[in-house]
Amino acid sequence: MRPSTRSGRRPGDSGTRDRILETARRQFGELGYDRTTVRGIAAEAGVDPALVAHFFGSKQRLFASAVELPFDPEVVLPKLLGGDPATMGARLARFVLELQEAEDTRWRMVGVLRAAASEPEAARIVRERIIAAIFAPMVASLDVADAPLRASLVSAQVVGLLMARHVVGVEPLASIDLETIVSAVGPALQHYLTGPLHGS
Amino acid sequence: MRPSTRSGRRPGDSGTRDRILETARRQFGELGYDRTTVRGIAAEAGVDPALVAHFFGSKQRLFASAVELPFDPEVVLPKLLGGDPATMGARLARFVLELQEAEDTRWRMVGVLRAAASEPEAARIVRERIIAAIFAPMVASLDVADAPLRASLVSAQVVGLLMARHVVGVEPLASIDLETIVSAVGPALQHYLTGPLHGS
Repeated sequence: MRPSTRSGRRPGDSGTRDRILETARRQFGELGYDRTTVRGIAAEAGVDPALVAHFFGSKQRLFASAVELPFDPEVVLPKLLGGDPATMGARLARFVLELQEAEDTRWRMVGVLRAAASEPEAARIVRERIIAAIFAPMVASLDVADAPLRASLVSAQVVGLLMARHVVGVEPLASIDLETIVSAVGPALQHYLTGPLHGS
Repeated sequence: MRPSTRSGRRPGDSGTRDRILETARRQFGELGYDRTTVRGIAAEAGVDPALVAHFFGSKQRLFASAVELPFDPEVVLPKLLGGDPATMGARLARFVLELQEAEDTRWRMVGVLRAAASEPEAARIVRERIIAAIFAPMVASLDVADAPLRASLVSAQVVGLLMARHVVGVEPLASIDLETIVSAVGPALQHYLTGPLHGS
C-alpha cells in the first residue's frame, strides 16, 4: 500500500518524498486539481518548492505519482474473479468501497475523480489505470457479449457511486454503512457484468 | 428551453444577457469552474467585464444562472411518473440522455458536474435542484421503503453515466447510441427505484 520509491536514494530522501506525496494526495483530494499548487504542497510538507520539482517535475507528474493506484491489478483481479460469477457485482462493490475506508486511499481515488472533471491527464488515468486495468479484464473473464460496453457501464456506476458518496455528498449515501451499499449496488453492477443489456 | 429573463428589462439587455449566459455555459462546461473567468466570458461575448458583473454579480452567481435547470420539474415529473412504474427506470434514463442531445443543455449539465467536483455551490445545485427536485419526488411517488436511499442511488447512477459519457469519455459509452444505453441502464435504475435493496 506504500507509494513505490525509486531505488538508489538515500534513506532521508525516501521519507521526504513520501511526506510530499502524502501531502499532495490530500491536497489534490481536498482542493481539486486546479486549486492545488506545488507551492502549497511544499509549504505544508515543510520543504522548498524546488525540492518538490526535483523529485517529481511538473504538477501534472506529481499528481500522477500521488494518485498512483494503491493496489496491484495482478493481486486484486484473482480475488474479484474467484468465486461465483453471479456474485461478482457484490465483490466489486465491496472492493471499491473498502478502498475508501482508509483515508490515504480515499484521497487518491477522490483526487483522481475530482481532477478527471477538468484535467485530461486525470481522465486518462481513470480510463487506463482503472477501467483498462481492472474492469476490462473482469468482464473479459466472463465470456459475455458486449464486453467493452459492459466495462464502461461498470465504470460509470463506480464513478457515480464514489462521486455521490465522497465528492457531492449525497445523503444518505454519503454516510450510510458499507454493507447496505454493497447489497444495494451489487445487483446493478451484476446486471452490467452478466445481465441482458439489450432488453430481456 | 431558453434561459429565463427577468421582466422589466429593455429588449437589448435581454439579448446581451442571453449571449453572456450562453458563453458562460459553454465555458463552464468546457473549461470547468476553476478555469473559467468572468474576464474570459466577457471577452468571448464581446462585452465589458463590468457588464457581466452588473447583470450577474459574482462568478459564483453567474455560474448558478448559467447552469439553471433547462426544464421545469412540474412539467417533467408527470411524464416520468406517468405510465408503468416497472419501466420508470428506462423513462428516466431516456429523459436524462435526451437532455444531453442538445448542445446548450449538455453544457449546463456537464458544467454542473465538472464544477461539483471542486465547487461546493455546484455540489449544492446537484443536491437541491436535481436530486431534491426530480429524483426524490419520483421515488416518493412509488410508495417504497428506503425512499431517500433510493433517490441517492439513482443520483449516483445518473451522475456516473453523465461523467463517464461526457466528461471522462469512457468508450464505447461516450459514443454509443442513446437507445442502447437506455436498454442497458434502465434496469439498473429500475432496481434502485423499486427493486430489493437489502438482498432478495
